[in-house]
Amino acid sequence: MIDGPRVGALESGPRNSIADVAGVLVGHITLANGPTQTGVTVIRPHSGDAYRHPVAAAAVVINGFGKTTGLLQLNELGVLESPIALTNTFAVGTIYTAMLKHAVRTNPAIGRTAPTFNPVVAECNDGWLNDLHAFAIDEDHYVRAFEAAGADFDQGAIGAGRGMSCFGLKGGIGSASRLAGHAPHRFVVGALVLANFGRLPHLTLMGVPVGGRIAPADAAHPVRDDGSIIVVTATDAPLDHRQLRRLATRASAGIARTGSNFGHGSGDIVVAFAAGERRRAEAKIGGTASGGLPDAALDPLFDAVAEATEQAIVNALFAAETVAGYAGHVRHAIREHMPDWRAVLNEASPRTR
Amino acid sequence: MIDGPRVGALESGPRNSIADVAGVLVGHITLANGPTQTGVTVIRPHSGDAYRHPVAAAAVVINGFGKTTGLLQLNELGVLESPIALTNTFAVGTIYTAMLKHAVRTNPAIGRTAPTFNPVVAECNDGWLNDLHAFAIDEDHYVRAFEAAGADFDQGAIGAGRGMSCFGLKGGIGSASRLAGHAPHRFVVGALVLANFGRLPHLTLMGVPVGGRIAPADAAHPVRDDGSIIVVTATDAPLDHRQLRRLATRASAGIARTGSNFGHGSGDIVVAFAAGERRRAEAKIGGTASGGLPDAALDPLFDAVAEATEQAIVNALFAAETVAGYAGHVRHAIREHMPDWRAVLNEASPRTR
Amino acid sequence: MIDGPRVGALESGPRNSIADVAGVLVGHITLANGPTQTGVTVIRPHSGDAYRHPVAAAAVVINGFGKTTGLLQLNELGVLESPIALTNTFAVGTIYTAMLKHAVRTNPAIGRTAPTFNPVVAECNDGWLNDLHAFAIDEDHYVRAFEAAGADFDQGAIGAGRGMSCFGLKGGIGSASRLAGHAPHRFVVGALVLANFGRLPHLTLMGVPVGGRIAPADAAHPVRDDGSIIVVTATDAPLDHRQLRRLATRASAGIARTGSNFGHGSGDIVVAFAAGERRRAEAKIGGTASGGLPDAALDPLFDAVAEATEQAIVNALFAAETVAGYAGHVRHAIREHMPDWRAVLNEASPRTR
Amino acid sequence: MIDGPRVGALESGPRNSIADVAGVLVGHITLANGPTQTGVTVIRPHSGDAYRHPVAAAAVVINGFGKTTGLLQLNELGVLESPIALTNTFAVGTIYTAMLKHAVRTNPAIGRTAPTFNPVVAECNDGWLNDLHAFAIDEDHYVRAFEAAGADFDQGAIGAGRGMSCFGLKGGIGSASRLAGHAPHRFVVGALVLANFGRLPHLTLMGVPVGGRIAPADAAHPVRDDGSIIVVTATDAPLDHRQLRRLATRASAGIARTGSNFGHGSGDIVVAFAAGERRRAEAKIGGTASGGLPDAALDPLFDAVAEATEQAIVNALFAAETVAGYAGHVRHAIREHMPDWRAVLNEASPRTR
Repeated sequence: MIDGPRVGALESGPRNSIADVAGVLVGHITLANGPTQTGVTVIRPHSGDAYRHPVAAAAVVINGFGKTTGLLQLNELGVLESPIALTNTFAVGTIYTAMLKHAVRTNPAIGRTAPTFNPVVAECNDGWLNDLHAFAIDEDHYVRAFEAAGADFDQGAIGAGRGMSCFGLKGGIGSASRLAGHAPHRFVVGALVLANFGRLPHLTLMGVPVGGRIAPADAAHPVRDDGSIIVVTATDAPLDHRQLRRLATRASAGIARTGSNFGHGSGDIVVAFAAGERRRAEAKIGGTASGGLPDAALDPLFDAVAEATEQAIVNALFAAETVAGYAGHVRHAIREHMPDWRAVLNEASPRTR
Repeated sequence: MIDGPRVGALESGPRNSIADVAGVLVGHITLANGPTQTGVTVIRPHSGDAYRHPVAAAAVVINGFGKTTGLLQLNELGVLESPIALTNTFAVGTIYTAMLKHAVRTNPAIGRTAPTFNPVVAECNDGWLNDLHAFAIDEDHYVRAFEAAGADFDQGAIGAGRGMSCFGLKGGIGSASRLAGHAPHRFVVGALVLANFGRLPHLTLMGVPVGGRIAPADAAHPVRDDGSIIVVTATDAPLDHRQLRRLATRASAGIARTGSNFGHGSGDIVVAFAAGERRRAEAKIGGTASGGLPDAALDPLFDAVAEATEQAIVNALFAAETVAGYAGHVRHAIREHMPDWRAVLNEASPRTR
Repeated sequence: MIDGPRVGALESGPRNSIADVAGVLVGHITLANGPTQTGVTVIRPHSGDAYRHPVAAAAVVINGFGKTTGLLQLNELGVLESPIALTNTFAVGTIYTAMLKHAVRTNPAIGRTAPTFNPVVAECNDGWLNDLHAFAIDEDHYVRAFEAAGADFDQGAIGAGRGMSCFGLKGGIGSASRLAGHAPHRFVVGALVLANFGRLPHLTLMGVPVGGRIAPADAAHPVRDDGSIIVVTATDAPLDHRQLRRLATRASAGIARTGSNFGHGSGDIVVAFAAGERRRAEAKIGGTASGGLPDAALDPLFDAVAEATEQAIVNALFAAETVAGYAGHVRHAIREHMPDWRAVLNEASPRTR
Repeated sequence: MIDGPRVGALESGPRNSIADVAGVLVGHITLANGPTQTGVTVIRPHSGDAYRHPVAAAAVVINGFGKTTGLLQLNELGVLESPIALTNTFAVGTIYTAMLKHAVRTNPAIGRTAPTFNPVVAECNDGWLNDLHAFAIDEDHYVRAFEAAGADFDQGAIGAGRGMSCFGLKGGIGSASRLAGHAPHRFVVGALVLANFGRLPHLTLMGVPVGGRIAPADAAHPVRDDGSIIVVTATDAPLDHRQLRRLATRASAGIARTGSNFGHGSGDIVVAFAAGERRRAEAKIGGTASGGLPDAALDPLFDAVAEATEQAIVNALFAAETVAGYAGHVRHAIREHMPDWRAVLNEASPRTR
């Protein structure tokens, strides 16, 4: 249970995480050893083999200063056929290869008689806390994160989030869920973020600009906005590629409400998929998950993805612990800066006269 | 001087409007006569002939439930060669023709020996207050709005904004400006919005969710989210098409902070141009305004466009007066609902325990 | 029966036109009076009301130097809810309004309690043969073209094609169809083009560069490449928006094979829809036509759309008659230049030593 | 000197290769050892360090069934800051890492105080001739291909092209150049392709459909169209990102003329850059190469890129030798099938009666 602000008005699922979309699994491997503070996080769209049972998917690039792989094919075919792996910028190639080898072991026809495999690897730059030049991530780390995947998972300075910074504070992995609509259109929307973006003066919690209230402990360090945020969002609603593209677009509203204006150097990328066991049954290679929800019923899902994304970012901040790493660099947890965050929010709320 | 909240942290230009980008001119024609509550607003990129002196431009479609014309060519060639006209949905064709005839009168070679002319007409649906079926807008209204264009212009329930609704309240035209960066990269970013979007419960001012505090006077009327918001943003920074596309993308952050999640039925469209007398001198037919600012210097402009857009929406709300129109429908000014908006904001600010 | 080359290898439908997609209807109105040589062509996706029964659709912009309306919403929602009207550049606004009024008469709730209507109007510039400044097209012409729509329709210098030029010759309306795949995936793909593009030296028929063999009768007239080509393609295959986007992309191969490199000044735009009575039954407002064909089965459809598009362009040329119009300008029919086109093709085929 | 058809009408540069854009360098490493038939090809935009001196660039995805990395950032920032590496599908991750490590060795600030590095790796699937499961490519191969880069380079079954198939024949690397326009707008456009696409019956040379004349020697082998074509095109014209995007779009015309309809399983991707020593001088980190050519002057460049792309594909076919590889699979050189290609073309030309 993360002790931090709760944003928005919608109800959460029981875990308040992306795993509330039944079947979605998340696993981490964390490397925390002196100057090496990094890791890998794997999101599986369901407990089966995504290559054999792809799910409908879409990706939206809000700002393309990033190195995510796999989005061309994902948007052309409208399906996700791999897990989504998150890691640091320098490990993209290694994890790409690791995912490919893992898929080939399970499906030896890949590269022989079956179509090739499209790994989705997304990244942020954790070079402030992590010695990127050490190239510490190897292929086996992917396998271990994959195998660790479950419906219950930790948040904060863990997995791919280990070395990430957010608003000049400690960032990392956060997740949340929101329930949308009413029966028979009652669905879950979950979000998981790798949060490594933002400048401290912009930090906004529950609409309250609190960034100015935090003394930058690491004032000597330039707070560069060349991070990124990766949003992975899942739903059990029967959306097709086009509708998922529309859903992914709305994650940007949640990012904006935390204080980001999508900085020049920030790779802000959203991947949405219609996942979980509920969708897996209908997925088949070469097909596309069928639509089934009229577009006029999407607004509750749009609200849910914006809230879940904002909450996931807040959760990443409030779940994170302080981390010291490469070259003595430190990123402090927001909890250290505002142990009584309720008081800070009350104090910082608009005083209009 | 609009009596309403001031959002953000950046300094405004002297007019706090898009006309702070020197040379940008705005004109209105307003039809307010019983069931006819509509109009036309024209934004000119500079005081000259835009066909002869096009300016660098880009458009971004956040949600494409809208009928704006001219964006295909604007994005292919990277230039705006016409004024931008805003009006109601049913008047798009008429204003398109009016703009074309106006351009042909000035440049008789169009359609003969010179390339054709690409009118940019954007629209929102004012059918709640305005009897769209009356088709009240005619071609001459465009000419009158064009000729009325100046650096000083009114906001609120005027011009194309006359019949628009925003968060279930009276919306319309709003504008604002923000100053960005430091010499030699000190620039103005201005925004003008036609605000016709949003559901009342989502309304957020200065980060404070106030929508729930307003009793919907017109509770019997469904508050449909099939409006739209058109954002026109201008800067005197020497941006090229690609950079203006990046700038336009950031307007979405300002929209989101007022409470929108870019509803299914809302045509949310941003047009950005590098305008004003400063850019006009260098514009020439067939060319593109040259870039000149490195992308790494864009962040202050990104912050400015997000703030200016949010402020323009707030200004549209607080400048608007109550309007009654078609079928006895009424949209009330936010000022009537919260004459003491400062108190409401203070009261509604987060109470976290 | 058009006497001209037959391109490609696939079988045609019985009409060799877009109307082989059962239910698609085409109507023309032609204005041929001295300096006025223009018109309107209407394509209806089925015999019903497209607003009430929209069909899955997608549009692809190969080159955006054009003024087509309606594509933003068509691609956002993935449906076509109007006929497609083709006309001259200066008539876009008028036909937009005519389509809207026509839809409102049939569906009075539009602009009251039902969502607005998205007219798709595409255009080419017929200003060489037609006196654009006369603004000869009025709203009633749309209604007459709509009412004239049937499964049998003329091609060549007719309807919107009346004043169009293609490769410096007389262009206009052409159509063709091809059959694709095998049962149970046997489908029709039809194309209809408004052909107003290309430079004479590039003209290629059945792969043979014949443009150099035609003496430009109007050599004194600059052959400007500021035309356009609009391709409307329909299929009875159960494609969704994403798949139709893929289909539309392949029309470009057909255009290229006639000798076009998609000139700077040419608005090259493709609209694809899954149409006909077969699709109408399943269409409903607010929904999307369901996919149902795996992407791996699309290749025969891709081949068919490329061939049908190339053939439709060839048909436009060979169906056209010579037209004289504005300012004494004349565009000669290709049949006049090469009455024995078979001999020309044989003579012009590659002589490689 | 490749003995094969010459397409189009424009003059070539002295090398008839992409290296006619002065400064562009190409290097190969080839692995040809039993079941391993693969390699790496590196294209350098100029002889300097692309990270320090990026060039204006744009990428266009015709069909996104491919795994190319780096395009998101390339299109966001409008620059190419790395060489372009071509290789097999399974080696993408390895080459990504190799390029990154190579850049970091030269620029140790990357991942410390300077922005990260965006490697562009494009691929095709050579799994018919090459044992992909051997993962034979290692990081050092990139370095060797990079170091081998020069203005003179081989074509055909070499480098990344070693194991590629094209129209059921031996494909691989091809290149060509065309001169465009007149002084002062006289420029070179060069193309280099990795050709691994197409079905034999579609093969078209100089507009003549010759595929049906070739007896498929490997008839027992399914000719799957799950290849890809990567087009790299360079020019010394001073184009900006938007103009290069327009240029890249026209490469599709050249591909189409060889008989492709952009098959479902083919990743058809074009990267265009304004390169060479002429552009290097003006390039700087964080800026964008300035435009300078009016769009109305682009048509000769569009013609040139279409011709150069078509010629490069033809050259890939006619330069290739027969290759036998994995599992006894063989792809025969087109020269074996039609040693007297001139006679075949004459014979196969249209006989229209």
